[in-house]
Amino acid sequence: MINQKTVKLGTVRSSIRELFEYGKKRKAEIGEDKVFDFSIGNPSVSAPTEVSDALVDIIKTYDPVLLHGYTSAQGDFSVRKTLAEYINARFDTSLDADCLYLTCGAAASLTIAFNALLNSGDEVLVPAPFFPEYRVFIEHAGGKFLAVDGVVNTFQLNLEKLESLITPNTKAVLINSPNNPSGVVYPEKDIKLLCEILEKYSKKFGNPIYLISDEPYRELVYDDGIKVPYVMNYYAHSLVCYSYSKSLSLPGERIGYIAVNNQMPEFKEVYASICGAGRVLGFVCAPNLFQQLIKKAYNVTSDISIYKNNRDRLYSILKDCGYQVVKPDGAFYMFVKSPEEDSKSFCERAKKYELLIVPGDDFGGKGYARVSYCVLPETIEKSAAAFRALAESYKLI
Amino acid sequence: MINQKTVKLGTVRSSIRELFEYGKKRKAEIGEDKVFDFSIGNPSVSAPTEVSDALVDIIKTYDPVLLHGYTSAQGDFSVRKTLAEYINARFDTSLDADCLYLTCGAAASLTIAFNALLNSGDEVLVPAPFFPEYRVFIEHAGGKFLAVDGVVNTFQLNLEKLESLITPNTKAVLINSPNNPSGVVYPEKDIKLLCEILEKYSKKFGNPIYLISDEPYRELVYDDGIKVPYVMNYYAHSLVCYSYSKSLSLPGERIGYIAVNNQMPEFKEVYASICGAGRVLGFVCAPNLFQQLIKKAYNVTSDISIYKNNRDRLYSILKDCGYQVVKPDGAFYMFVKSPEEDSKSFCERAKKYELLIVPGDDFGGKGYARVSYCVLPETIEKSAAAFRALAESYKLI
Repeated sequence: MINQKTVKLGTVRSSIRELFEYGKKRKAEIGEDKVFDFSIGNPSVSAPTEVSDALVDIIKTYDPVLLHGYTSAQGDFSVRKTLAEYINARFDTSLDADCLYLTCGAAASLTIAFNALLNSGDEVLVPAPFFPEYRVFIEHAGGKFLAVDGVVNTFQLNLEKLESLITPNTKAVLINSPNNPSGVVYPEKDIKLLCEILEKYSKKFGNPIYLISDEPYRELVYDDGIKVPYVMNYYAHSLVCYSYSKSLSLPGERIGYIAVNNQMPEFKEVYASICGAGRVLGFVCAPNLFQQLIKKAYNVTSDISIYKNNRDRLYSILKDCGYQVVKPDGAFYMFVKSPEEDSKSFCERAKKYELLIVPGDDFGGKGYARVSYCVLPETIEKSAAAFRALAESYKLI
Repeated sequence: MINQKTVKLGTVRSSIRELFEYGKKRKAEIGEDKVFDFSIGNPSVSAPTEVSDALVDIIKTYDPVLLHGYTSAQGDFSVRKTLAEYINARFDTSLDADCLYLTCGAAASLTIAFNALLNSGDEVLVPAPFFPEYRVFIEHAGGKFLAVDGVVNTFQLNLEKLESLITPNTKAVLINSPNNPSGVVYPEKDIKLLCEILEKYSKKFGNPIYLISDEPYRELVYDDGIKVPYVMNYYAHSLVCYSYSKSLSLPGERIGYIAVNNQMPEFKEVYASICGAGRVLGFVCAPNLFQQLIKKAYNVTSDISIYKNNRDRLYSILKDCGYQVVKPDGAFYMFVKSPEEDSKSFCERAKKYELLIVPGDDFGGKGYARVSYCVLPETIEKSAAAFRALAESYKLI
């Protein structure tokens, strides 16, 4: 018998992938423009032209033996140095190159961090709603995944609830802001309070509780005055998992990093463990061409005004139809309240109107559904009638 | 306490990396051309011009949203289809796209395969000498790594020894031919005999023993008439882990695949488990730009005649100095017999002559040292006097 856990995880698709595959089939049946596919978080906006230009320039001018050769496992020193300086200038930290570990994207950042930090049975608290793969990553690293319900209807951190779940086995808290699937940003006051709680229990139990911030959506924030706090400014035992997948529209190229806060006393041990975890998982190094790319394009983003317009238009359509939904501050998702208790049944009914939206159950958000608006503006425009008909079927209007 | 296993693996470098870092320091001290660095397996030959041309063409002509977007976790269907057809034409197999799973290189292929196949405590037999990271990958996947001594002085498979180590817990045998660190190729008659043994014990114990063939060096074979057998032609329960790191000189870009033999009855379960393992380890998909590249460059290789010339020249230097060494058929390594029992002491003495060669101990080859000849031809030429002086210090000449 081979490993039945991985057999199961390879057989049962995630609810997102399941619906995405259904969508591909349905589009082939009735036509691409007849299906309103809000299932997946694949950026719909092109990488900025700086990306193509820089890639071509690098390929044409660098020594190919060096360009395509191994870098150190942590990543090319000069790339890490550039990024550390950028982070310091932007967030008033004092990182150096050796605080950064370049990875094959956010998922790799997370599996490496969990494998580096967790011993078997360690608990990780994850505020809901959350990206469903977190559970898979934490459990495979030997950890225990514990969801923490958020504040009802706002999806903000429920710090009282979180505090009540801390035990001597709590090794880490994982946050994701701007959030997938709700789009909310956790405000500074809550991050401060969270860090105070973690400080208190780290002292009480004599073991640090790590704060891991998963930040693939950091650059996707749409309103002036919305600030995404940088956890290192508030808490020493913190790690930031970053990815260029969404900010540069490069999800298929797998490039990101882990930044380890050098203010934690055991910094060297944690960084070494990150290196060890990358090694045992088989990562070797992040793709070198894309390492060199981000050295040039670290402060560039795709045109996110398209997502902002999508958000505004979709939000207004949904509100006009009588749906309950929190206006998201960032990312490219909305978490809509299901008009009936069972959100799976709601999403099934939505399919009849060719609307593909994902039930919130796997996101720790029963009774809600995720709508990904990283789509063409036309898709949103054309979907309005379908959202209205679906609302009418529930007598929302 | 964080995970002490990964702390240790991130703190204690592999013996190869250790020497490589020493070499960098030493070169800075006495000059690049004064140090004869035979420590690491980083290709010294450029990627072929087809690679740069294809990359630029792809970047300039493909839709960036698709090009840099997620592919399915297994890899782009059309890429897998192209590779399956190529493998079928070359090795007379009948694979289809869904037998292939594209990976971030050979290390990823191996960690995914081990995590997919192994349950805790399962044994993997690995003929010595072997690449030291195999132990790390197998143990982290919960397996038990068991080295099988090779035939003395030839480094060929010792099938009697291997058979004697098979137990009901044997889940897999991992082979690597052309071999790192010896450069030998296992001939067809031995592969056939190995497969007969595995067939016999799979039946006896009622559980398949998988044969995993790690093939990053398949294309690096230097003499007419040397054939690297394709394991799928001899055994149903076989998987091939392939990488373009050495054949296309792209080790830093992380692109390769796992091919699962569809002749095994439980093929679907094994392939699903590969998908599940890739998911839990955080791989998401292989870098898409390089997926598209290999669709165009699958039958191209770097100029390996440079390695052949290096091999011939280095072999003749070493023989002239009185060293015992088997002439390698492929890869870019030679495994030289240490003139004293302790090969670590031999490699330390070599350092005094600015020769950086790696003790064989971690490769399961005590009493030998690995010499990587993926270097500039000048390095070999200039190293001749140092090898001679080292031999004289042992009174070999």
